Amino acid sequence: MRLPPHHDGSELYVSDPHPQLGELVAVFVRVPRWVDVRQVWVRSRPDGTLHLREGVPDRVEEHDVIWRCELPIHNQVTRYRFQLRSPGGLSWLTAAGVSRWEPPESTDFCLTTFAGPPDWVSNSVFYQIFPDCFANSGATREWPEWSLRSAWDDPVSTDWRVSIRQVYGGDLQGIAERLDHMERLGVNALYLTPFFSAPSSHRYNADDFTHVDPLLGGDEGLAMLSAEVHRRGMRILGDLTLHHCGSTHQWFQSAHELGQAAATSEYFPWEGTDFAYCRGIPTLPKLDYRSSRVRQAMVTGSNSVVTRWLRPPFELDGWRIDLANMVGRYRDSDENKPIARATRRAMSKVNPATYLVGEHMYDASPDLLGDGWHGVTNYSGFTWPVLGWLGDVELLGRAWFMGNPVMPSLSGQDVAEALDAYRANAPWTAATHALNLLGSHDTPRWRTVARDVETAVVGVGLLMSYPGVPSMLYGDEIGLTGSKGDLARSPMVWDESRWDTALFEEYRRLIHLRCEHVAFSRGGFRWVHVGEDVLIFLRESASQRLLVRASRRAHRPVPLPPELLLGCRTASAALLYGQVPLRERPDGVAEVPGEGPSFEVWELDAAPASTA
Amino acid sequence: MRLPPHHDGSELYVSDPHPQLGELVAVFVRVPRWVDVRQVWVRSRPDGTLHLREGVPDRVEEHDVIWRCELPIHNQVTRYRFQLRSPGGLSWLTAAGVSRWEPPESTDFCLTTFAGPPDWVSNSVFYQIFPDCFANSGATREWPEWSLRSAWDDPVSTDWRVSIRQVYGGDLQGIAERLDHMERLGVNALYLTPFFSAPSSHRYNADDFTHVDPLLGGDEGLAMLSAEVHRRGMRILGDLTLHHCGSTHQWFQSAHELGQAAATSEYFPWEGTDFAYCRGIPTLPKLDYRSSRVRQAMVTGSNSVVTRWLRPPFELDGWRIDLANMVGRYRDSDENKPIARATRRAMSKVNPATYLVGEHMYDASPDLLGDGWHGVTNYSGFTWPVLGWLGDVELLGRAWFMGNPVMPSLSGQDVAEALDAYRANAPWTAATHALNLLGSHDTPRWRTVARDVETAVVGVGLLMSYPGVPSMLYGDEIGLTGSKGDLARSPMVWDESRWDTALFEEYRRLIHLRCEHVAFSRGGFRWVHVGEDVLIFLRESASQRLLVRASRRAHRPVPLPPELLLGCRTASAALLYGQVPLRERPDGVAEVPGEGPSFEVWELDAAPASTA
Repeated sequence: MRLPPHHDGSELYVSDPHPQLGELVAVFVRVPRWVDVRQVWVRSRPDGTLHLREGVPDRVEEHDVIWRCELPIHNQVTRYRFQLRSPGGLSWLTAAGVSRWEPPESTDFCLTTFAGPPDWVSNSVFYQIFPDCFANSGATREWPEWSLRSAWDDPVSTDWRVSIRQVYGGDLQGIAERLDHMERLGVNALYLTPFFSAPSSHRYNADDFTHVDPLLGGDEGLAMLSAEVHRRGMRILGDLTLHHCGSTHQWFQSAHELGQAAATSEYFPWEGTDFAYCRGIPTLPKLDYRSSRVRQAMVTGSNSVVTRWLRPPFELDGWRIDLANMVGRYRDSDENKPIARATRRAMSKVNPATYLVGEHMYDASPDLLGDGWHGVTNYSGFTWPVLGWLGDVELLGRAWFMGNPVMPSLSGQDVAEALDAYRANAPWTAATHALNLLGSHDTPRWRTVARDVETAVVGVGLLMSYPGVPSMLYGDEIGLTGSKGDLARSPMVWDESRWDTALFEEYRRLIHLRCEHVAFSRGGFRWVHVGEDVLIFLRESASQRLLVRASRRAHRPVPLPPELLLGCRTASAALLYGQVPLRERPDGVAEVPGEGPSFEVWELDAAPASTA
Repeated sequence: MRLPPHHDGSELYVSDPHPQLGELVAVFVRVPRWVDVRQVWVRSRPDGTLHLREGVPDRVEEHDVIWRCELPIHNQVTRYRFQLRSPGGLSWLTAAGVSRWEPPESTDFCLTTFAGPPDWVSNSVFYQIFPDCFANSGATREWPEWSLRSAWDDPVSTDWRVSIRQVYGGDLQGIAERLDHMERLGVNALYLTPFFSAPSSHRYNADDFTHVDPLLGGDEGLAMLSAEVHRRGMRILGDLTLHHCGSTHQWFQSAHELGQAAATSEYFPWEGTDFAYCRGIPTLPKLDYRSSRVRQAMVTGSNSVVTRWLRPPFELDGWRIDLANMVGRYRDSDENKPIARATRRAMSKVNPATYLVGEHMYDASPDLLGDGWHGVTNYSGFTWPVLGWLGDVELLGRAWFMGNPVMPSLSGQDVAEALDAYRANAPWTAATHALNLLGSHDTPRWRTVARDVETAVVGVGLLMSYPGVPSMLYGDEIGLTGSKGDLARSPMVWDESRWDTALFEEYRRLIHLRCEHVAFSRGGFRWVHVGEDVLIFLRESASQRLLVRASRRAHRPVPLPPELLLGCRTASAALLYGQVPLRERPDGVAEVPGEGPSFEVWELDAAPASTA
């Protein structure tokens, strides 16, 4: 495989990822000499018209010429592509690759003038906690009437009508007491599913957005946990159902009882004589964002739900917005973008270093320009493709909670195409600030989905090395299992004799590897080789070049393109993770080994200094 | 080539192309039996969530099964795709084709609840007239000071600073007197470049939007022409620069002289102590749509520029909006969508049967959902690909007026990919209501671009047969030439001894063919074969199946997939255009001949009745 011309949004190729209006940004494109490019332009469309600006060779390397172009930032959103002229003709480079005909603009590279996500996000590995099932401090609680009190070792019921009432008694104090576990594992950011008072164990049906559920330890519990998290230099993210409240919320109770006479009747979209519900579930009434009072109460008001929890004493570091794909969307009204933007503005006003990530299970690209959500849960652009390659698709098909009847089984080529398509459809900043995941409280457990423990480790390797922010569900690291979403919520096991300690060790090593190598958090991304059973790619920052291999089974060794090693010897490639070194063939060609399932990371020598 | 599963937005596959909110639309998908599909779902995302609805086999044909699904129209915009299950696994069908992994939604099929374009548009062939150069009635005019009076046979100057002042003296009365020519040719809709008073021959720098230039015959001239056009059952479209006015417009004269003190100072975006201009051209000041007074004057007011010309006595049938890609876009303000929507609303209020088409040279897909422009000038999705396949790309590169340095030379496969990409990125209604063209007053003449006269005819064949509304420039039909935009504006020749009468005859035949066959205006579109030098496709309506071949040079004959002929004999395929019949090989396989350059249309037998 010869490497094609390349550009991405990383520091190697863009001088300023968050420019101001009126700025000139230097954008670079790496062109292999074999392509014989004679002229390069950057193409953009200021105010909608065409602008072509010719670039110059900036550096000449052994195998590549690095061209530099000046890109004028004339609008809030600047889509751009490169136009390359070689003796063979003209071609265009977009995030979807090189095209011989001038392609549509949906895969153009994209810079915006919106403030970027806070720096800490790209250095984070998130640990998702379902508060009821993580750790119990032993404090005495009053158990609500609706609850079915379960002992820590009781199984989760396979009947969801039962499981949503099962209360195991985990609490916020319990989480605080287990922060050592998270530190040992290496994660540095917690994401808690909802802590609002609600008549279910999942709490996505809040009856009050202004108080933490007393069952979890109340407001004091959250303030204490947040302080302890921050004292350790970690971060904490909440989970907010902007889209709906619970049917036991007083807003809805009034509207339901008094109808149009209720002060809160406009909070909910009427459907005939009833209201509209989330996917028709009567405990989850949709909120109506056409109402300015709903917008104020939830988002824009001075003490809105969005903002109050970011202030002392809680000081959350941001929100995961539940069902971000549905928020504010109802029949002929679509307030989704205005609400996302208003949420972002309200949060930034309280604390500009807060992170706003939307739950999204589908193609989120139209929502990712950077003025609303910083990123989304990357089910479409990471989870589904990786699961289709490494996972038990029949089990996934049976388990899939949103009603999708089957999952496709994918080849390595399919996965690469899928990853590329979603990455290319969004600005680089959105791709690198998506929450990647192998599973959540809504899906089967990764350990159950993965074909075997070796394959599970390959998936974790991809999670930690692919562009985006890794997120894992509590207990994945010790091998908890569960064949569908509800069953994935079983209580954490604290008896280490019941852990898969070998798996824990791999999680720990991969998480540390991720956090200690800047090329994973800030580097660009290039494919080196894609096969049926193997994916090989580069993560490159200004100071680091990492070569990553993920294989699902044994395959033929892959000779490396010579330009990758830049004249260095394979011996100089340090094996950072995995068992197998790069090999050198008798003819001197470097070769990636063919073992599998297997995951490796090698550090290549940094690019030699410019000779231009 | 085996034909893949197929759906498009045409009447064969969609029960209602312009549904109401709450409606269930029946959508059909044609699945060849060889694919062995066992289950079909239609997938959509009402209110942003996932909705899968299983379909049923509706009809079983000899080679295909036609599945029927019910698609709920829950929002104003409904994107949908099909999910197919066969023993080999799951796949998805979008407008980009079949995918083994779940693709992004930008190529999903799309239905909207917005009112569709008026019916007459799809039955139209547009004839573009540059009023100064088409026909002179002989009326006495006063020649303005800026003009360089030219005799009808004088060449157009190659210096644009001269050519924009050259006035040949064509007028609206002259056009009216030549309507017999248009009728003979077969076109049924006129599109006039601007008729507003302006100090240039092209009049894109209007100094008054409330009067027709006296040089063209004034308001009376337009009223008379419009009446005559309508008396003949033809249509007439105006050309409006919503984006800017001329620097001699009184609005700008005041703003320029009085600065902030001028009543019209807010009409123009200030840039320091000066204003912003269209592409920096000082005679074309941008209008500032942040000003409600500009919006009222141009669009929303009761006697706005947009509406006044649609009313008696002018009764234009719609507008071509100049630089629709730039309208309302300036630095951090983007009023483009609101202005497009307001323009559409204002026009529909005066006359719902008016057509709104935007000039757009780039990827317009984000602007094509159907609430603003009905369609755009289809340079990206038709002109550039076809010119790259059939045209002299070196000449185009030298001529290209927007500063693009070279045009790519394309293979048939490139063209098909490009056409597909742009068609797939927009709703079917936008694709079928785009203005397709081989050239305009802004580009070289098609006869100059085409490699030879035979190739020119192939291009005209594609123009008349590809989905969209054909538009041609006056004089193309008689072989006028011109190697760039300005030079394409040379006066029409009325001395028939100087015509290429053979070319005229082919234009006439192809235009009539287009207008007489409903499959061209309302039919679906499927590729049958794509080669380096040949494109073969089907246009199919409920009553008609047309097989179209365009070749740019001789190629190997192409055997037809047997399912196409549905058991009929080749002899039953009527040759509607071209010289060469379908052939039958000794083994009984039907074959498309390999002559070229060449264009043919065959009518196949209609699909046999349902056997379900």
